[in-house]
Amino acid sequence: MTSETPATETFAEFCAAWLPRVEAELERLLPPADEAPAELHAAMRHAMFPGGKRLRPMLALLGAQAVAGDPVRALRAAAGLECLHTYSLVHDDLPAMDDDDLRRGRPTCHVVYGEATALLAGDALLTLAFEAAADGGGQAVAVLARAAGSRGMVGGQVEDLAAEGADEAAAGRHTLERLQWIHDHKTGALIAASLLVGAHAATADGESVPAELLGLLRDYGDRLGRAFQIADDCLDLTGSAAELGKNPLADVAAAKLTWPALVGLEASLATARDLAREAGEIAARLGAGVATWRGEPQARLDASVRLLQDCSTFTVERRR
Amino acid sequence: MTSETPATETFAEFCAAWLPRVEAELERLLPPADEAPAELHAAMRHAMFPGGKRLRPMLALLGAQAVAGDPVRALRAAAGLECLHTYSLVHDDLPAMDDDDLRRGRPTCHVVYGEATALLAGDALLTLAFEAAADGGGQAVAVLARAAGSRGMVGGQVEDLAAEGADEAAAGRHTLERLQWIHDHKTGALIAASLLVGAHAATADGESVPAELLGLLRDYGDRLGRAFQIADDCLDLTGSAAELGKNPLADVAAAKLTWPALVGLEASLATARDLAREAGEIAARLGAGVATWRGEPQARLDASVRLLQDCSTFTVERRR
Repeated sequence: MTSETPATETFAEFCAAWLPRVEAELERLLPPADEAPAELHAAMRHAMFPGGKRLRPMLALLGAQAVAGDPVRALRAAAGLECLHTYSLVHDDLPAMDDDDLRRGRPTCHVVYGEATALLAGDALLTLAFEAAADGGGQAVAVLARAAGSRGMVGGQVEDLAAEGADEAAAGRHTLERLQWIHDHKTGALIAASLLVGAHAATADGESVPAELLGLLRDYGDRLGRAFQIADDCLDLTGSAAELGKNPLADVAAAKLTWPALVGLEASLATARDLAREAGEIAARLGAGVATWRGEPQARLDASVRLLQDCSTFTVERRR
Repeated sequence: MTSETPATETFAEFCAAWLPRVEAELERLLPPADEAPAELHAAMRHAMFPGGKRLRPMLALLGAQAVAGDPVRALRAAAGLECLHTYSLVHDDLPAMDDDDLRRGRPTCHVVYGEATALLAGDALLTLAFEAAADGGGQAVAVLARAAGSRGMVGGQVEDLAAEGADEAAAGRHTLERLQWIHDHKTGALIAASLLVGAHAATADGESVPAELLGLLRDYGDRLGRAFQIADDCLDLTGSAAELGKNPLADVAAAKLTWPALVGLEASLATARDLAREAGEIAARLGAGVATWRGEPQARLDASVRLLQDCSTFTVERRR
């Protein structure tokens, strides 16, 4: 770790400390709104700014720190993860998909700029994500692409659309197994990849992180992704429009396949908390492994472990 | 160069020799049509197979050979270029864009699979392009992303849509300067990038190609891209539906901004031939530079130079 890394105790503090630098990196990465074609660049910026919590970049920086790498070196790749997430929202909102008119409390991209420009703005954001990820080397790009493609996020979106509606529920195709598959692909894959992209980017010029440690980081990310998505499902029932930045009960209205719809709100939250605890245990093993690999005293990694553990708890509790 | 490289005299022979290996690589790269989500993977394959000439992969392999690298090492990245090109066609054909129902003589992706799946199949192909390009290293990915994004292909598509229609022509906004900008971005950027991606991928593990030589390869690609697009504009006037794989005179019907519309057919073709000749001269300088860099006799590079020169001629003449 470097002296440039702000010392933080909790994941919320970590996010607060890094948010200005992530925003500045995104500001640099996206072309100015007056650069030709101005309509396209304005549409990209409409979707990107002002942003939300920038969770995926934060996870990338956390992943860098988890392998005792320098998060500063992962900043550009981290910004790329937000581009990728934002593209998925822009395309999800299109009339041919979810046809949403509200996102983060503002009119969606196609409502303001029209369908063709919104479609192309999404394409450009996805492409920009990989330009940024390339800064973290070929491994970071490969991890990101696998998580985002037809065997990851896009595959999850297809299955999510297919599972929507009362007919699917009536036909007995709303099973926990199917839901888990959708969650793992649609959301979990990119959450786990964010951590790994950060780990690769922070060590791109130096030694590669041992496969065993990358495996632990992925296991942690898998649990985190599941917990995140279950908590997200629950929030649709319990959150206000202001908290959500979109209309509440949208999932219920669309007869979506969700955790609360299958097992109820309390059981869903209990599962999310179990996953968060598992993630915390994996984080402890990861910290010990990294200390051994780096030849550093375990105590040097304690702060990173605590951050990973707090992140998993935060993911569940913040979203109630 | 390696013994695996088929010895070919002309660009047409080069393409014929490599086509089966490019097809095999694409076959490996795309998930099977029965892998879940099957609808998505079938849609991706519908757009990809059977293919056309696979020009961009061929240019990548040519770029590898132009720097005396092994084209075999660039095969996966070369296949990625076809994924990227195909995604752009799938999204271009969508109702919100050009709303085309015929492509390569077959119904377009959204006609067969619906808009949502076609949109996502395009997204997945773009993502897969970068997964494949990552095999060529971070530099290959960065070159590809810059050429494909808002400052390249996507930017060109936006401007192309904006320039369409009789109103734009009547308002005096159909200028050669604007057309050149659109061509350079929409088509030229990816053509030039194909050559560079191949050069990077073929030398990813070894020494980097000197910047001066990459500059020459880019200059060659720029001329080639312009010649290609002008010839393509002309083909809309002179080609049959069978040759084009789409309806002829589509550009005229849409009052598109094209070279023949501005300067006439013969002057357009003359410009394309001038560009092809310039490209050929640059190829000769590139060959000499690579020979010096590699410490090989000029004669060893002569075959590559002749292929590059024949490619630029072929691009224009084949398309009449």
